[in-house]
Formats: sequence, structure tokens, C-alpha cells
Amino acid sequence: MRYVVGVDLGGTKTAAGVVASDGSVLLTEQIPTLNRDGGEAILDATAALVRSLVTSAAAKGAVVEAVGVGSAGVINAAEGTVISATDAILGWSGTAIAAGLTQRLGLPCAVVNDVHAHALGEAGHGAGAGAATALMVAFGTGVGGSFVINGQPVLGEHFVGGHMGHFASPLAVHRGTPLPCSCGHVGHVEAIASGPAIHAAYRRDGGSATLADTRAVFESARAGDHLALSVIAKAATAAGQAVGGLINILDPAVVVVSGGLADAGELWWAGMETALRAELLAPLSQVPVVRASLGNTAAIVGAASLVLDH
Amino acid sequence: MRYVVGVDLGGTKTAAGVVASDGSVLLTEQIPTLNRDGGEAILDATAALVRSLVTSAAAKGAVVEAVGVGSAGVINAAEGTVISATDAILGWSGTAIAAGLTQRLGLPCAVVNDVHAHALGEAGHGAGAGAATALMVAFGTGVGGSFVINGQPVLGEHFVGGHMGHFASPLAVHRGTPLPCSCGHVGHVEAIASGPAIHAAYRRDGGSATLADTRAVFESARAGDHLALSVIAKAATAAGQAVGGLINILDPAVVVVSGGLADAGELWWAGMETALRAELLAPLSQVPVVRASLGNTAAIVGAASLVLDH
Repeated sequence: MRYVVGVDLGGTKTAAGVVASDGSVLLTEQIPTLNRDGGEAILDATAALVRSLVTSAAAKGAVVEAVGVGSAGVINAAEGTVISATDAILGWSGTAIAAGLTQRLGLPCAVVNDVHAHALGEAGHGAGAGAATALMVAFGTGVGGSFVINGQPVLGEHFVGGHMGHFASPLAVHRGTPLPCSCGHVGHVEAIASGPAIHAAYRRDGGSATLADTRAVFESARAGDHLALSVIAKAATAAGQAVGGLINILDPAVVVVSGGLADAGELWWAGMETALRAELLAPLSQVPVVRASLGNTAAIVGAASLVLDH
Repeated sequence: MRYVVGVDLGGTKTAAGVVASDGSVLLTEQIPTLNRDGGEAILDATAALVRSLVTSAAAKGAVVEAVGVGSAGVINAAEGTVISATDAILGWSGTAIAAGLTQRLGLPCAVVNDVHAHALGEAGHGAGAGAATALMVAFGTGVGGSFVINGQPVLGEHFVGGHMGHFASPLAVHRGTPLPCSCGHVGHVEAIASGPAIHAAYRRDGGSATLADTRAVFESARAGDHLALSVIAKAATAAGQAVGGLINILDPAVVVVSGGLADAGELWWAGMETALRAELLAPLSQVPVVRASLGNTAAIVGAASLVLDH
């Protein structure tokens, strides 16, 4: 068995684990991401996290050979650098992650965007294991995804591939006006189908201001709140319609749906899957649509696969 | 230089050409597709067409080594068979194209769906030549396309990949009701952005019944017909919005737009490209969007590449 460390570097926390070549996770650790301190400080802290795991692994007889990182931001996976990142991680844009970690650790390092890492984990060892192609779409704070072909995510010419929340949705409209989207444009899937979009729709449609977030809207829906039920149903329909259309274009062997909304239970899932199946071309009607199965370790396992499989 | 024959087998005509390994087309011939006579008769006629080209090529000193076919229908490219086809070619479904032509001609044969062949031609030797990834979308009688990665189209698990006309469009609606689509569902891009959809919209919105087809609607628009201008603008917007969204997801190096509408001039193209660019994420704003350049030989050249490049 070979061993590597997989790192899931997000805006608020950085989780890492020792992953074996069969995809199993031996042990994990987690630190807050130093998201106000700049790229070099984040690399220092990440290297320390990896060193700690390397030591723990050695105590179990496992020698760590390399480091794979799934990072927030637009990542140049060929060079292992951050092309751009939001202010959620100040100073992250421009950071040479692979070179910086290799310099600090003396280990080979490869990097990919965290959504692609998540998809790689699910496609390789999770809900999509064994399938030649997997379409992963995550509905949470945002909407994003990855199309994985034979273990390779479609990264795109500018490493921007996978922005599955940013195409037009017939439901991303309010009183005839397309809803604003996080990308600066309007009328996109993310503007109606993300978690925050559900809370925003509830408030926009006159729902109680005492419900502070999307979770509260779901709780209210489960208690019989008709408005909450209706905004969740609309968001789920928009999500399913979007994924269904992508299935007609990409014809994946399996579809993995993940993110906070996929974990919210049947209330969202049933509406999503009904709308999804209503879009499918006849030869695709039996495509498996499954919930992500690896939970928080998906991106760790996927990041590890960058340096295990190649 | 090596030589093969590329065949573009459509519902009404079958065109073929001798193609050199540099993508150049030495000579072409064309026959009507025997679309009422069944698979074996079509294979007999296609084999005769290929034989004729082989003889003509030999007279010029070119030895044909193999045959590549782009065919209408859902094609199992691994086995060279027709999974399904519409009644436009009776008895085509189930036909073993590759085995049948090899048996008749004694030459190796590979087959792919004609839209993918078209895209392979444009990606390899046409408007997308030199790009690592190309998104081709055709707007004509229907809407379809192909995403080509390093010379390989994304065929899909059921060989259904590329159905880019069958996802939801906010514009595929009339008086609040989603428009019916050729696939049996409703509200899809093809229902508003195909050529026939433009003619249907013109009639639905009260346009003159004397305009017999989409071409006539374009002529009327050029003569100043406001309704014709408006239905074309709406179709072009739907087309551009759809392609723009796909660009955000796939991040191709180049986008090739083809089909009868792409050839209809600025009246459609300008509206399409404006809507397309309005969808793009910031890092993708400079993606080249170009018209297909090979015309009728695209699918011949692409089909030939199946047996030239592998």
C-alpha cells in the first residue's frame, strides 16, 4: 500500500488526511485557514499540518510519499498556482501552492480546485466509484460541479470549467425580472437554486424575518409553512432541471449530487429528482442519480488521488 | 501522405470524399440515401460510393486505407452500430455499419454520429484547428453539438452526449406555457432556437401565413418586417444564452457555431453573440467564438479523422 496526504483547503478551515492507495483514510486533522494572513502564512500552516500527519502516519508504519491539495479559488492545476480567489482568503491569488509546499516539505505536490477534488473523491472512491464518467453537482452556498472522465475532471482552458451554477434557469426570475447572480450577471441557476437563494426567496416572497437562514426555512417547511415549502420546491425544481439538462449534454454514467441541500433530506431531493427526470432524453431515463457518500473526506480523498493515480 | 474515405451519411443524402492525412479533401461524390430501403440496401449503396472514390483516388496515385463514417442516428462508436435512428432512415436502427462496410469493402471502418463527425472536422482542420478543446454547437433543423477534448468527442455512456438543444431555456415559453420540444418534453433550447422554431414563432405570433419557411422569415426580416426581426432576435438570444452557459461549464479553448442559422449572416449572429457574451464569467470573456469554416465537408473530414488519427 502507498500513502499520501490529501488536503482540503477552504475559506474557513483546512482539513487534511493520510490516504492509502485504496482510497481509505487513515487519520485526519484540521486547522482554521489563516484567511486574513496571506498566501505564505497559509502555506506555512498547511505544511505544519501535513508534517503532523506525516509523523502520525510514520508511527503507524505508513510512509507519506506526496501531497495532493484541493483548494478554494481558480487553480492552475498544471502549475499548481492560484489564478484567482475571492476575498474569503486574502492574498491567496497568485500563491504558488505546489512549489511552496514542495519547498517546505520536500515532497511532490499537485493541486486542483476543491470542487474538482471533491468530485474526484466521489468519482474514484465514493458514490461514483467504478463509473467511467461521473457528473458531480453540488448545491450549497453556491452551485458548482465537475465532470470527471476516466478519472480526469474537465478543468477547462482557463481552469474555470465546472461552473455549473452559471447558466440560465427559467426559474431564476422574480416578477418578470431575472434574479441577480453572484457572478455579476442575472438569471442563473445559482440565483434560485443555491442555499442562500432559498432564504432570499423566502424573505422576498414575504416570509417571516425571524427565520435567519436557509436551515430555518427548511425547519419551518417541515413544520408545515406553505411559503417555505414552496420556495424550497422551486429551488429543488430549478436544481433538477439544470442537472437534467446537463445529463442530456454529457451523458454521464452516474450523477452524484452533493452539498448542503443534497443532505437536507427528501424535502429537497424528491423535487430535485422529479424535475431532473422530466428533462431526460428517452435513452437516458435510467441514469443513476445518487447522493454523495464520502461527506467531508471527499475532497481529501480526491486531492490525494492527484498524486496517487498519476 | 495517407488516404482514407470519409462518409457523411444523412437522412436525405450521403456524401463522401477522399481525405488525406493533412485533412485536405481530394475529391468528393454524393448519392441520395436510400432512406426507405433499409440498412443493408444503404450499406450496399454506400459501399458502391466508397468503391467509386477508391477507384478515382487510385487513378491519382492515392491508395485508400480505411473508411470513416459519420452517420445520422445514435451511434455506438465502440462497435460501429446504429443504436437508434428516426424514421428519416427506415430500418437504420440496429445496422452494423462498420462490420457491414468492412465485409463489403475489405477495409477497416470506424463510425460515429454525424454531429460528432462534423465537430471532429471543425476541431481538427476547420475553425477550431489547433485548440486543445472545442465546443461546437449547430443551430439548424435541430440544435446539437459536440465537446471535443484533444481530438476526442465526449460521446457519453449511452452515446447520447452532445444533445445541446435539450436543456431548459427561459425563452422557450409562450404566454406562460413552455413550448413543446421535439424530444417530447417542453421548454428546451431547441423549441425556441432551431430554424423551424423561428418559423413556428412567426406564425404563432400572428405573422403572415404566406411565409412558407424559416428562410422566408429571414428574407422578410431583411425587408424590415418587425415581427420577423423580433422572432429571429429572440431565437438568436436563446441560442447565445445557451452556448454562453455551456462555456461557463466546459471552458473550451474555442467555440465553433455552425448550422443553417450560423450561415444566415449578422442578423442572427450579432444577437447570438451578444447574448452569449452576456453570460460569460469574467475569466472567460475573451473566448473566441467563430463560425464553422469547412461547410459541407466538415463531417467528411471528421469521419476520416476517425481512421486517420488512431
